[in-house]
Amino acid sequence: MPVNLPVPVAANLFPVAGVRIGVTEAGVRKANRKDLSVFLLDEGATVAGVFTQNRFCAAPVQVSREHLAAGQGIRAMVINTGNANAGTGAAGLANARATCAALAKELGLKAEQILPFSTGVIMEELPVQRIVAGLPAAIANAKADNWAVAAEGIMTTDTQPKAYSRQVQVGGKTVTVTGISKGAGMIRPNMATMLGYVATDAAIAPALLQSLVKELADGSFNRVTIDGDTSTNDSFVLVATHQAGNAQITAWDSADAQALKAALLEVSRLLAQAIVRDGEGATKFITVQIDGGKTEAECRLAAYAIAHSPLVKTAFFASDPNLGRILAAVGYAGIDDLDQSKIDLHLDDVHVVVDGGRNPSYKEEDGQRVMKQSEITVRVGLGRGTASQTVWTCDFSHDYVTINADYRS
Amino acid sequence: MPVNLPVPVAANLFPVAGVRIGVTEAGVRKANRKDLSVFLLDEGATVAGVFTQNRFCAAPVQVSREHLAAGQGIRAMVINTGNANAGTGAAGLANARATCAALAKELGLKAEQILPFSTGVIMEELPVQRIVAGLPAAIANAKADNWAVAAEGIMTTDTQPKAYSRQVQVGGKTVTVTGISKGAGMIRPNMATMLGYVATDAAIAPALLQSLVKELADGSFNRVTIDGDTSTNDSFVLVATHQAGNAQITAWDSADAQALKAALLEVSRLLAQAIVRDGEGATKFITVQIDGGKTEAECRLAAYAIAHSPLVKTAFFASDPNLGRILAAVGYAGIDDLDQSKIDLHLDDVHVVVDGGRNPSYKEEDGQRVMKQSEITVRVGLGRGTASQTVWTCDFSHDYVTINADYRS
Repeated sequence: MPVNLPVPVAANLFPVAGVRIGVTEAGVRKANRKDLSVFLLDEGATVAGVFTQNRFCAAPVQVSREHLAAGQGIRAMVINTGNANAGTGAAGLANARATCAALAKELGLKAEQILPFSTGVIMEELPVQRIVAGLPAAIANAKADNWAVAAEGIMTTDTQPKAYSRQVQVGGKTVTVTGISKGAGMIRPNMATMLGYVATDAAIAPALLQSLVKELADGSFNRVTIDGDTSTNDSFVLVATHQAGNAQITAWDSADAQALKAALLEVSRLLAQAIVRDGEGATKFITVQIDGGKTEAECRLAAYAIAHSPLVKTAFFASDPNLGRILAAVGYAGIDDLDQSKIDLHLDDVHVVVDGGRNPSYKEEDGQRVMKQSEITVRVGLGRGTASQTVWTCDFSHDYVTINADYRS
Repeated sequence: MPVNLPVPVAANLFPVAGVRIGVTEAGVRKANRKDLSVFLLDEGATVAGVFTQNRFCAAPVQVSREHLAAGQGIRAMVINTGNANAGTGAAGLANARATCAALAKELGLKAEQILPFSTGVIMEELPVQRIVAGLPAAIANAKADNWAVAAEGIMTTDTQPKAYSRQVQVGGKTVTVTGISKGAGMIRPNMATMLGYVATDAAIAPALLQSLVKELADGSFNRVTIDGDTSTNDSFVLVATHQAGNAQITAWDSADAQALKAALLEVSRLLAQAIVRDGEGATKFITVQIDGGKTEAECRLAAYAIAHSPLVKTAFFASDPNLGRILAAVGYAGIDDLDQSKIDLHLDDVHVVVDGGRNPSYKEEDGQRVMKQSEITVRVGLGRGTASQTVWTCDFSHDYVTINADYRS
């Protein structure tokens, strides 16, 4: 059961002018399953992406980077589930290229105008024939109001689709932001990927798009963690179709531009948080906020040390205010000159630790009351400066082990 | 059930001349439990130690460092279980000092000649009165052949005591090396500590001892991991009593000195590996060996990424040769210029990955045969240089979650 994650309602997902999406069943790994999706983008769309930092990145990630760099104008994306095309060597690269070539041929485009994405089993050969055979049906299915279907079409072991949509006014024009995501850990059977796609019809100067997608990722997908296992295939793509009729945004300083960016960030963040809410075995959604750091980097070190600690995560699962584990994680986070006597810890509104020791007025029952909630904020003060960072994670339950220890089938 | 870990036999643990050990029940946290141990060292013994790198280190770690630095000649150590005296602020430091002062008074020593150690619950006040009240009984119990009892006396949630002993000839004299350890994760109820104590009666130049204890730790306790949670209290202490009658060792280049060092390293490594074999919920003992690195540091990055990955560890628990997870962990280990096309992976004798892709001759049943074993070696070749490193870890089972999600009681 995902944690407080509503199922998307198709009628609430606004189409984005210039984007059509088609989904089909290609039988990549299993029959009777939506496993192949195509995004078709009108000419003139601008696309930017950020990809996994994993050095063992999958073939489609390598090809997507190449095609974005080629600058031919991206006109389509193709996403298969069931197979990650990772750890597949030279054959994997050839298969990712063959997929792009086949879709390009169907659409009358160049292969460099296609971005490929794969998610699923690692170290098995991509069944490229089945994917190519499925492309015509996916294209035939393409329509503007297919976001909810696509959210389902990119799922692997996600327990439910993830999609959000917002509209804002920019220069008197209604601008739409709609996105989908998938991921629930590095997933059985080692489905290894978080994928996120956000599109807007806003006119945004193409030169702004790459820094924008990086900024959105840093405020959303780069701030969530389930098990600390960075996948081989993570990808987050932003599409701007420029069809909303607004005057092109060339800087972010106007109120309208800020409103658009806020909508983009909200959709990105909700999509990223949805992955945590649907995290493997998750029973709680945890916000880890670090304040008082010298730098944002050291705040992230502390936040991830807490968010990745199996001991902290099992304590959340147990609703056990075993808060020494949080202190210990801050202590080993790698902040060399940390002064433990300045550490402060809150659990929601409960002040647990002051000056590195137990707050004299802290009562265990107050800690336990918060720990029993399904949404919890851990707030650590480092007492060193003014930097802050926030990370979202989930707890660590028996179901996590069950899901990940299940033999691939 | 620990993995292939024999219960120590008291008769096989050779006393170390100049070391007597006493153990008693002080009721630190629970009644009827051996929870207070003292090591009494003859005058002239040399002591060196290495301690947790956790910045949130416990009060006894801070005091032990001070007392070693004071250079007054360490003559006793006192170890309590049931309470870690960590996250206890200024009161915790005062309690650790009070424990030393009380033992010094009983023994006619200075407080600076005592090293204190605590392991158990974090963020609760040390019941120093009960510890002080127990000291006379611990001292009265002191004897040379008490190593097996001490191994039991320092246990927290360890399922069995851990002790090893070796004798070697140095310059025609029999030299003894005996040690004990404890730890099984950062443990319920957040017992947070690996402790290791190794003593030898060999005469070793005192100037060599600190670098020796560091070298032994680097080859043993610093190479094991259960859940990646560095505790607040980790300590490893080496005692040399100089009573074996051998000519003092002033360098390590002779064959005899090498034999002694090998015995010290073997005992240290067995003690460290015993902690992994008794790791919380462990069903398998995993050796992770990285070869072909440019530096030992980057080999350690890769080894720990594998050893800490919840996905890798759950796959071992399931006996599932889900080996893409190992590749993914190597990929995110932080080796920036890693070339995935040079990666090689063996599981014991089975060659799984060659040139970053699946070995054409690899068969899943071969991988599964190895994964079903209780002892498994993962060997990754990075193809970048000649450096190697080895780390030992265990798998990640339902019992780990059960143990760590159990409410403290």
